[in-house]
Amino acid sequence: MAEKITARAKNYPQWYLDIVKEAGLAQNAEGVKGCMVIKPNGFALWEKMQRALDKLFKDTGHVNAYFPLFIPKSYFQKEEQMAEGFAKECAVVTHYRLRSVNGQIEVDPSAKLDEELIVRPTSETIIWRTYKDWIQSYRDLPLLINQWANVVRWEMRTRLFLRTSEFLWQEGHTAHATQKEAEDETRTMVDVYRTFAEEFMAMPVLVGPKTEAQKFPGAVETLCIEAMMQDGKALQAGTSHFLGQNFAKAFDVTFQNEKGQREFAWATSWGVSTRLIGGLIMTHSDDNGLVIPPRLAPTHVVICPLGRNDVERGPSIAAAEKVAADLRAIPRDAFYGYEPISVKIDTLFDKMPGFRYAEYELRGVPVRVEIGPKDIEKSACAVARRDVPGKEGKQFGVPLTSAAAHIDKLLRDIQTSLYNRAKAFREKQTVTVATLDEFKALFPPREEGDEAGAEPLKFVYAHWDGTRETEDMVQKEYKATIRCLPFDGPQEPGTCIFTGKPSARQVVFARAY
Amino acid sequence: MAEKITARAKNYPQWYLDIVKEAGLAQNAEGVKGCMVIKPNGFALWEKMQRALDKLFKDTGHVNAYFPLFIPKSYFQKEEQMAEGFAKECAVVTHYRLRSVNGQIEVDPSAKLDEELIVRPTSETIIWRTYKDWIQSYRDLPLLINQWANVVRWEMRTRLFLRTSEFLWQEGHTAHATQKEAEDETRTMVDVYRTFAEEFMAMPVLVGPKTEAQKFPGAVETLCIEAMMQDGKALQAGTSHFLGQNFAKAFDVTFQNEKGQREFAWATSWGVSTRLIGGLIMTHSDDNGLVIPPRLAPTHVVICPLGRNDVERGPSIAAAEKVAADLRAIPRDAFYGYEPISVKIDTLFDKMPGFRYAEYELRGVPVRVEIGPKDIEKSACAVARRDVPGKEGKQFGVPLTSAAAHIDKLLRDIQTSLYNRAKAFREKQTVTVATLDEFKALFPPREEGDEAGAEPLKFVYAHWDGTRETEDMVQKEYKATIRCLPFDGPQEPGTCIFTGKPSARQVVFARAY
Repeated sequence: MAEKITARAKNYPQWYLDIVKEAGLAQNAEGVKGCMVIKPNGFALWEKMQRALDKLFKDTGHVNAYFPLFIPKSYFQKEEQMAEGFAKECAVVTHYRLRSVNGQIEVDPSAKLDEELIVRPTSETIIWRTYKDWIQSYRDLPLLINQWANVVRWEMRTRLFLRTSEFLWQEGHTAHATQKEAEDETRTMVDVYRTFAEEFMAMPVLVGPKTEAQKFPGAVETLCIEAMMQDGKALQAGTSHFLGQNFAKAFDVTFQNEKGQREFAWATSWGVSTRLIGGLIMTHSDDNGLVIPPRLAPTHVVICPLGRNDVERGPSIAAAEKVAADLRAIPRDAFYGYEPISVKIDTLFDKMPGFRYAEYELRGVPVRVEIGPKDIEKSACAVARRDVPGKEGKQFGVPLTSAAAHIDKLLRDIQTSLYNRAKAFREKQTVTVATLDEFKALFPPREEGDEAGAEPLKFVYAHWDGTRETEDMVQKEYKATIRCLPFDGPQEPGTCIFTGKPSARQVVFARAY
Repeated sequence: MAEKITARAKNYPQWYLDIVKEAGLAQNAEGVKGCMVIKPNGFALWEKMQRALDKLFKDTGHVNAYFPLFIPKSYFQKEEQMAEGFAKECAVVTHYRLRSVNGQIEVDPSAKLDEELIVRPTSETIIWRTYKDWIQSYRDLPLLINQWANVVRWEMRTRLFLRTSEFLWQEGHTAHATQKEAEDETRTMVDVYRTFAEEFMAMPVLVGPKTEAQKFPGAVETLCIEAMMQDGKALQAGTSHFLGQNFAKAFDVTFQNEKGQREFAWATSWGVSTRLIGGLIMTHSDDNGLVIPPRLAPTHVVICPLGRNDVERGPSIAAAEKVAADLRAIPRDAFYGYEPISVKIDTLFDKMPGFRYAEYELRGVPVRVEIGPKDIEKSACAVARRDVPGKEGKQFGVPLTSAAAHIDKLLRDIQTSLYNRAKAFREKQTVTVATLDEFKALFPPREEGDEAGAEPLKFVYAHWDGTRETEDMVQKEYKATIRCLPFDGPQEPGTCIFTGKPSARQVVFARAY
């Protein structure tokens, strides 16, 4: 089984594609360039993510709604930066009918739209046009709305989950009476993303603002969560934007304040997408396949009864069913999203045990239980944890009567352990540099394909003079970008390592997805 | 409050639009003809429906996946009936980039697609193209997959929820090794829809096949659930299609059977949409606003503490919080979808109690609790059920200590009661006719707008000769269609009331949405 997957050390990008394919997560769509099919195993992950995020949003006072897929072209015109930022990558609907001519289907030229419709790349424009109708008075504020939706950004170079022409996401769009309240919301939501990344995905993140160059078109400030993948590259995993009054002004959204004066409303928007699935894979998985943190695992436990014949298999199956029932009876709690522990019993006795185990390792089931005739003699079972492959991660002789409690605790331990391991990796791969020579050595020139077999890269803290020119130069010369100005990072001033000019604080450079 | 809503007896179509507007469920999108914005109250209903349906799908062995929004034009060509059925109403993407010329955004003519992409009106074609890669052997079958998605069918005459250019739905697409298995699946899924309609929506439905004329383009047989609205019109609420081998042949999807022979796979598809929200409204709601069956209510109970001043309000609020805590502590069970009972405490003391009550009646909260100073003296509260407006539905003197248990029971009673009421109405409005004169009297000619103030229509069982010609004539002359051949209806042969020819069985005629 493991041979299906290229080793990370050999070719990391290929390893990623192998995992996506072999674990049945996604594939490129046939006939629709740049789009993906999210296969059942991949979609099950997204459902778990959605469920957890949706609860975090609702717990912070948000409600869901749904706005149209199509945006009139003229709406793009209204917010200049938005038009500049997204116009290059839009799917455009120009007609609303096909016709059949001599048995051939073709576009009906008489069904041309008066105004072209854009398939939403993001929904600020249509939502703020709608908010104009909803917001009259300060009593209508705040509006705290989220949308789960598909969006389209035409991409020429795609990679499954990480960059596709259509992807699934959520986009929050809030309106507020004051700048302070909108800024607080922006911060609250990036903290929600941090909570989700760290506590559910077990993926440590840096949190902080983007530079001017890297922020969202139309935003005053963009906060982000940035994660380190196992190749040392950064993945922007979520963003929360303070939009000022830009969209309120573009769509004339005003409200009467408590003093009876009309003011423009203040806006935020924030989103995460199916890109997170790519981040999940590249944070935890190994050369045997997917590794899923228990809080997001569609199946928590697989139980494999063993036996050479029916006489041996009967007691193994009975014991498996008892352990499964005990697991499912564990009270629903927040760790499991108030759902029962999900248990699968595998009875593919025709296949060799090693084959069966490898299949579930590939798919990333956090815990595997093996129950064979020798275990039955001792009223025990063997319990293997996915995050520690091989014998080291397998405990023999776990009594059947206490197996469920043992596994419940183990699942919680695995969650913590994955987070700690990822955090230790990031810390090992993070350095601070004081000179350009040190910086150069960390970001050697690489051609396309050089990632194969390369050492993991690093997150590099360095002083930067705060200018767009220097940032652009670094990106051009070293293919590294400023990921963010971490809230938790050092805040002392210093000297830019590129220009020698004063620097307000260190920022984090990395190569990125 | 109630004055915002036109009485049903006065103008039923306007009553519907008033409910949708005043209960904050949806609105027409600005700038995008035929599309709707699903507002938070409406989307909360859809979320409850989704959650319940998704569980029913998973309990019957289905998994979710996601396929692309765009379908290459040529795929439509491959299944003839599909092309004929949907070509007239498709949004067509022809370009993938905009450009800015002298500050004006316009379509970039150099970014024309080689092959136009259709925004999915339904996904059989792209999914069966994908299944071609997934299905090799009988071991790969059955494939039991569902997708939650948005779809677009260009509509010229739209009505919120009932008919819009974009809508949300689920579409199941399954592949099977045998005709029998696919036919069984078709039946299983229409039964799932019946269960959902009757047990969750409290909306009784007729279940049975459509006629040849009314079936889905590309289907061999279409089973449906049909509900009666309060104006006596029928609403097709869900369909389950047996597709035979049509799509397998169109996309060359074959598998090796147990004997080593290659066969085409057998297909089903089935779907329900946000149209169900329209059905929910028109089944239960009244002239005071929305009525929601408890199993789908986003908020089950609103508690209104009362009092003229802080001295009176303090004990009322404390009692409200205690009742709310008791309600939330009721163990999660299947009736509530394993979620806690959802309780809201309304403390808008600035507003008159009557105004507060009317607001929650408008929004359809199933149970309202009132706790004022006189109730506190008796350690009691008043409990009002939404489905029985006015004093008749209000019980005074419910002891605070047992209020939660009382309300829990009441919520279950309301669910049953709504179903029984809707069923009794349908039965009252259903007749069997033996002559054309009787039929004519039941479907009088009506012009657009004549619905205002009209008597509810009826479901009419009558004999029909089984021909397309007669069916078309009836639709043209009487604006009535054959809704289905109900499984539970009379199966005896007879004489067609329109032509005098032999009839295999009675069918159900109605005017429909």
